[in-house]
Amino acid sequence: MSSVSSSAVLGPVTQVVTAGVATFADDLAGQGVAVTRVDWRPPLGAGEPDLADVAVDARRIEANAAAVRRMIAAGAELVDVRPAREVLGLETGQFLHAGPPIGWDRASGPMRGALIGAALFEGIAETPEAAQAWLSGDAAGSSGGPDLAPCHSRGGVGPMAGVVSPGMWLFEVRDPGSGRTSWCSLNEGLGKVLRYGAYGPEVITRLRWMAGVLGPMMQRAVRRSGAVDVKAIIAQMLHMGDEGHNRNRAGTLMLLRELLPALIEGGEEPAALADVVRFVSGNDHFFLNLVMPACKLAAGAAAGIEGSTVVTVMARNGTDFGIQTAGTGDRWFTAPADTPEGLFLAGYGPQDANPDIGDSAITETAGVGGFAMAAAPAIARLVGGTAAAAVETTGRMYEIALGENPAFTVPALDFRGTPTGIDVTRVVRTGILPQINTGMAGRVAGTGQVGAGLVTPPAQCFTQALAALADNARKAAESS
Amino acid sequence: MSSVSSSAVLGPVTQVVTAGVATFADDLAGQGVAVTRVDWRPPLGAGEPDLADVAVDARRIEANAAAVRRMIAAGAELVDVRPAREVLGLETGQFLHAGPPIGWDRASGPMRGALIGAALFEGIAETPEAAQAWLSGDAAGSSGGPDLAPCHSRGGVGPMAGVVSPGMWLFEVRDPGSGRTSWCSLNEGLGKVLRYGAYGPEVITRLRWMAGVLGPMMQRAVRRSGAVDVKAIIAQMLHMGDEGHNRNRAGTLMLLRELLPALIEGGEEPAALADVVRFVSGNDHFFLNLVMPACKLAAGAAAGIEGSTVVTVMARNGTDFGIQTAGTGDRWFTAPADTPEGLFLAGYGPQDANPDIGDSAITETAGVGGFAMAAAPAIARLVGGTAAAAVETTGRMYEIALGENPAFTVPALDFRGTPTGIDVTRVVRTGILPQINTGMAGRVAGTGQVGAGLVTPPAQCFTQALAALADNARKAAESS
Repeated sequence: MSSVSSSAVLGPVTQVVTAGVATFADDLAGQGVAVTRVDWRPPLGAGEPDLADVAVDARRIEANAAAVRRMIAAGAELVDVRPAREVLGLETGQFLHAGPPIGWDRASGPMRGALIGAALFEGIAETPEAAQAWLSGDAAGSSGGPDLAPCHSRGGVGPMAGVVSPGMWLFEVRDPGSGRTSWCSLNEGLGKVLRYGAYGPEVITRLRWMAGVLGPMMQRAVRRSGAVDVKAIIAQMLHMGDEGHNRNRAGTLMLLRELLPALIEGGEEPAALADVVRFVSGNDHFFLNLVMPACKLAAGAAAGIEGSTVVTVMARNGTDFGIQTAGTGDRWFTAPADTPEGLFLAGYGPQDANPDIGDSAITETAGVGGFAMAAAPAIARLVGGTAAAAVETTGRMYEIALGENPAFTVPALDFRGTPTGIDVTRVVRTGILPQINTGMAGRVAGTGQVGAGLVTPPAQCFTQALAALADNARKAAESS
Repeated sequence: MSSVSSSAVLGPVTQVVTAGVATFADDLAGQGVAVTRVDWRPPLGAGEPDLADVAVDARRIEANAAAVRRMIAAGAELVDVRPAREVLGLETGQFLHAGPPIGWDRASGPMRGALIGAALFEGIAETPEAAQAWLSGDAAGSSGGPDLAPCHSRGGVGPMAGVVSPGMWLFEVRDPGSGRTSWCSLNEGLGKVLRYGAYGPEVITRLRWMAGVLGPMMQRAVRRSGAVDVKAIIAQMLHMGDEGHNRNRAGTLMLLRELLPALIEGGEEPAALADVVRFVSGNDHFFLNLVMPACKLAAGAAAGIEGSTVVTVMARNGTDFGIQTAGTGDRWFTAPADTPEGLFLAGYGPQDANPDIGDSAITETAGVGGFAMAAAPAIARLVGGTAAAAVETTGRMYEIALGENPAFTVPALDFRGTPTGIDVTRVVRTGILPQINTGMAGRVAGTGQVGAGLVTPPAQCFTQALAALADNARKAAESS
């Protein structure tokens, strides 16, 4: 089993990946060919016929090269901060959420908790009980309950439950090359927060302060400072121990640095400004909510390329894990989400953890997060691993990625670019699943965060996507 | 050749270092003893008799354990920002400088340039020519020229030329445990700056702004915020790609984060505050000038311990490299400074570089900087090396250090503490010289920075220090 790539985008001019047959690798190495040795693993599920049909798809090589090229080329600038009502035209009763589509009936505890909190925040209900009744369609005189849709269906992303309601403020991020935009909510901090399913009074109070003070002040700062280059900050944070998913400490400080002069010169009331600076600088994850839409712009740049087997979305709603690929449009390939393994906050254990949740796996989809773990050896402590394992994880991700991002480099790997552009066929062929770093939400609505750890998508997402790509390949072959 | 240490402070309970004789190491490893294999190197110079006499000094083991214990225990808090005139009682015509004592006659280009600039800044002379005449004692009606003394002689440190004059503002840093204090000037940024020997009008204008705006505003912020824990920031920056000598990017942002609320709530004029925030956040080395006095407090904690062979000062004045040890008081052991090797700014090359200069090697003396290179693989690019070399450098420094600092840990080494407490005898015995990361000043006065690179102290500093320690050991043995 071997593949040869010769595009500048896709790596060295002649590079051969060999799996399982050492003598073949030895022969090539003896001829001066760069050889990447890969342990052979059985392919996932019954993918062999689909693999064969996709392999002979005449469109595949060029389509994948274009997909990776576009992902790498995509820029990301923070251009505005506005309420979801303005950005998306969301109306009262409309909610967006993380992951593939889901209704109240199948929603997990943290998703339900976040929807309850959003209903309280929007004034749709006065009590959690009333909110739940309305959300479940059981309320007397109900006009039919909420209108739910995935954040991804509106071109944006939300961490954990990812619930967005009209009154929440969003970062708007733009790719200056294509003009495409994406968005994400503002980060609330850790612990008892809406996105982890908490909806107590302190959660709602914080959301109101974010909508009344933080959002408007960030808007004034961004409008005064002009566009902030989010991609450049991501590049730097990878040199500062962050991987952009579970660790965003340096990124948050660099964002603050960018906005500070505008915040200071904007005539803000000093006490409110000090509150905002304390809130942002005291929340090491604040910048995650800019990494995510930047990664959505990158991954989304590959969307809609016929014949490409590159993954463009990985997202979880707490019940299902769903992926999309470049060659299959906005169709979701879903399977039950696994539960992360890692370290727990005091008082919590594995029995408290909800299955995997959130759109934040867009970071791995675009080649950072778990794919850049080698850049963040300190993450090892948070998710329960060693520094060597962090390096090995990034090394393993190169086996399922088609390219390396020259803008996102890892000092510990002598500035090698992060593995970028997950190839469905490589995942199925090698059995290597994308590595995701993630937070863990409590299983019970209202709990909040219980830990952080590591998780992979269910294999079926990839075998299903491969089957659809193979169908497309067969149709394309027939019509040509 | 082997050494066994069994103190909790000094590392694992049973650890054997073997040099050269593999079968000995293999035997020990076979018995389950942790073995560190070290290439055997010839001892430096003619140190063998001195090594033997120091080895049998009955005071040595406990003195060195105390030295390392004190270095590790030392804290560092930024407690005030004041002019040198106030902090040190410096008077017009008095200048402090980096490294061991030196006069104008033997001073290097960058040292002379910085002294010229300081004389202009203090209003002692109107032109560089007049300043040079006064400094060299050639001025008509001269009252004898400047009064020069090392920063270290006054308990402080200065980067590069390290020139401090009465009107310059200093960070004051305090060890809360012992009450001892240290100090360092405020960092000017890179390029054409006084500490690199530049003295043009832009240098003097910047110094006046630092004394008139930056210093007083930092003073108000620190007094309002209360003590800032510098040691805690150093610990964090080592998890964020900084090593605290040539890379202080995360440290600078974290310092800014600490001071921002006080700066904002202090009623500062917004334009001046924005200038200060831009200056600090735009200068990745701003925090170096707090790492240095924090390291001086740590290294200085070991000073004056009779019988200890631990290095307490490594400093260069651009002509000589000098060290001090715990067991030899404030006596300097000096030799001609080597010239760093590394990368040059555009337009400069090796012929432009001055020999090694600055008190910033106090960072390595205290176990960060070059000793923590494994924490900062991105530094490889700046000084011309690989990420693997950065890890190897820290690994090599463990061979000459007596302890590991549990407060300063390296994620890439699974949070092993940085090598701390350079032992003169280990340096002489192994021939391994301390690795220093450093900036490079232009050889010609007025040039400024020309590059950054790596350098080691001259071996003679250590053989001389060993000889003095051996003398002391012999005297102690005679009198006991």
